[in-house]
Amino acid sequence: MRSRPVRLRSRNAAADQLTVRRHNLSVVLSHLRDRGPRSRARLAAETGLNKATVSSLVAELVDRGLVGEGEAEPATVGRPGQYIRLDGEHVVAVGAEVNIDYLSVLVLNLRGDVVSEKRLALDTARMEPALVLARLGRLLSQALKRLEKNDIRPVGLTIAVPGLVGVGTGIVHEAPNLGWTDVAVVAEIRRILGDPPYPVLLDNEANLAALAEIEGQGPDRSADLILLTGAAGIGGGVVAGGQLLRGAAGFAGEVGHMRVRAGGPRCGCGRRGCWEAAVGLNALLAAAAPEHDPVRDPSLDVEKRLAEIGNRARAGDPRVLAALTEIAHWLVVGAAILVNVFNPSLLVLGGYFAALSPWIAGSLHDELRLHVFAGDAGGTRVAFSTLGFSASARGGASQVLDHVFQDPTLVEPAGGHHPVAQEESV
Amino acid sequence: MRSRPVRLRSRNAAADQLTVRRHNLSVVLSHLRDRGPRSRARLAAETGLNKATVSSLVAELVDRGLVGEGEAEPATVGRPGQYIRLDGEHVVAVGAEVNIDYLSVLVLNLRGDVVSEKRLALDTARMEPALVLARLGRLLSQALKRLEKNDIRPVGLTIAVPGLVGVGTGIVHEAPNLGWTDVAVVAEIRRILGDPPYPVLLDNEANLAALAEIEGQGPDRSADLILLTGAAGIGGGVVAGGQLLRGAAGFAGEVGHMRVRAGGPRCGCGRRGCWEAAVGLNALLAAAAPEHDPVRDPSLDVEKRLAEIGNRARAGDPRVLAALTEIAHWLVVGAAILVNVFNPSLLVLGGYFAALSPWIAGSLHDELRLHVFAGDAGGTRVAFSTLGFSASARGGASQVLDHVFQDPTLVEPAGGHHPVAQEESV
Repeated sequence: MRSRPVRLRSRNAAADQLTVRRHNLSVVLSHLRDRGPRSRARLAAETGLNKATVSSLVAELVDRGLVGEGEAEPATVGRPGQYIRLDGEHVVAVGAEVNIDYLSVLVLNLRGDVVSEKRLALDTARMEPALVLARLGRLLSQALKRLEKNDIRPVGLTIAVPGLVGVGTGIVHEAPNLGWTDVAVVAEIRRILGDPPYPVLLDNEANLAALAEIEGQGPDRSADLILLTGAAGIGGGVVAGGQLLRGAAGFAGEVGHMRVRAGGPRCGCGRRGCWEAAVGLNALLAAAAPEHDPVRDPSLDVEKRLAEIGNRARAGDPRVLAALTEIAHWLVVGAAILVNVFNPSLLVLGGYFAALSPWIAGSLHDELRLHVFAGDAGGTRVAFSTLGFSASARGGASQVLDHVFQDPTLVEPAGGHHPVAQEESV
Repeated sequence: MRSRPVRLRSRNAAADQLTVRRHNLSVVLSHLRDRGPRSRARLAAETGLNKATVSSLVAELVDRGLVGEGEAEPATVGRPGQYIRLDGEHVVAVGAEVNIDYLSVLVLNLRGDVVSEKRLALDTARMEPALVLARLGRLLSQALKRLEKNDIRPVGLTIAVPGLVGVGTGIVHEAPNLGWTDVAVVAEIRRILGDPPYPVLLDNEANLAALAEIEGQGPDRSADLILLTGAAGIGGGVVAGGQLLRGAAGFAGEVGHMRVRAGGPRCGCGRRGCWEAAVGLNALLAAAAPEHDPVRDPSLDVEKRLAEIGNRARAGDPRVLAALTEIAHWLVVGAAILVNVFNPSLLVLGGYFAALSPWIAGSLHDELRLHVFAGDAGGTRVAFSTLGFSASARGGASQVLDHVFQDPTLVEPAGGHHPVAQEESV
């Protein structure tokens, strides 16, 4: 039995038909991601689409390199069926990140598995933007060449930058920790890569890290989550009511510049009192070690430097322990503001907070309860990210995959453009 | 030409059909609200529904007392047509508010016009909750009796309270400025009103005030807005990406308890440093006038007391002017945190901030620019509410109307239950 249509607003019937086809392709593809491989018959039963439609949709998804067929184990009754599953071999998404101490590139296949990952320690804050982007371009070209050699098609690239970015324009407006103002990142990377046929996007690193955390939770994800990046800057990626919070001009989540410590040290943005001046990586390092200590050398790998800080804390180094206690205190003060305002189910601490979690976790939840108005901190759980410093690059690749799951027609069929769907197979 | 259906998830065909009917009733009713009275033919052309369906939908909406017919002016060509318009005579929604210094009840008709409004000055914080609710019940009964006399049907009531509320349970968990803990507001009001046949809801006052601001903007409303209530407490109602921010447990928007002033005066919640202890009405009054000054007497009408403060400021009273300057300073410090975090297009200051706006507006926008990381304060405009102290009650009534516009079948036909829609008229 068929349900009657909910009328679409548009009065262009052809466009409506494509919209419906796209929607149904998305339903099938997302179902295979969330529920795993299954037969056409089961896809039809579970999605409510009829079998002929499912067959037509699957054929198109195969054409586009998004799903494949596999022989099933013999069924208990009847002949063995063909199983449909996501194709992990032909289509990938690329994420990249520019941060203060490193560049990174990460490739995910359609199943969300990491195909490759590369991080380069680099003191980007002391380099010209053009030089940083040239190094990122080289890192990307190497990864893309390996993909091409294996006949794997990238369907998009997202670049993460810590700062205010124009998602639509591809321009970084302001990234004080990098010292960047109005840098046309997307145009430059497109030029270096020889104007690739897929979209190249730009986004804020904290937003992308929050997406990576959400994706990592699978289909039963939190609707209300805050991810705090922990690097030189502190960014906030907020998912509220199931949506990524972007704000009117795309500048939401600038939690690092909340004034939490009147008269505190000067921030990279020029103000005093900013949260990231109290709890950013540089604040920790300045408090934990003297100026020429190698743990403060941004040309060395950040994970190795953090491991060394961890070793010193474990050995009882009083300066390091005092620095971590101070960080944990200001971390709670700012986090409590966010928990009062957003009441998330989950507050995820990423970056260096996660790397040094044994000395930061301590009484974090108890302290938070003291500072949050709602009882038991409003039910907010605190967790440490397990994605390390590649969270933003991973989120960038995830975002590209998300677009594909929402509209599988973004991926061209291997043999060229797919014919407009016939009404019979909508 | 008909578009093919987007499959609904449910496989219950009957339920789907009702869902579609409900959706289409909502489309027609909302269209009449947003675009004004018009003919059936024009409704059909503009919504994309066919004429027979529109006629059937309009007949059902007439039956439910939601729309009426009016003779149109003679058309330039052909005979005069019948116009369909929202019925403002038969269906109303009721909002009520319990706050520190007053109770209020406000009735809106379907067009959003105020049918009646009543505020009662009352020192609620010094009264037992049961007594406060008895007074509110009396105020409501009076308003409802007047409606009944005029054969006007209330379709729902929402009660606003400043504090942590259980929207689903109807219980106020914690309202420190009222001194309330775990008060079953909805159950008590239902009892007083004799268990009415319509829904009685509870919500946070700031959330409801934000809804009232959004409704006041008409169909082209802001997708990202923050409303700050200005009473003894400071509540935040946040609309982000077009959705009211509620948080995981419904406790979002507790901006009054952000720690912005270390070592500041003690807050009603027992902590120090809370924003509302620095900028709440009591902070202003304590700074502006000696203890037994009548402007500090909560049993007098708050608007009259604020008018007196305004008179003194206008006359150059140095104590009042210094108090207002101090308030404006801390207002910016907290507001900047919210603007950094949410990047709203609009920050609306309500309650006493609006009443005393001539002395608060001053350099507010310039100051905000200094404290916000994004240039030009991220484009956020500051505005003062024009809804006065009835914003929350109005938002409560608006919320009920919203439910009706989303699902017009919530309003029973005057003659009893409406028969299940026939497939032909979906």
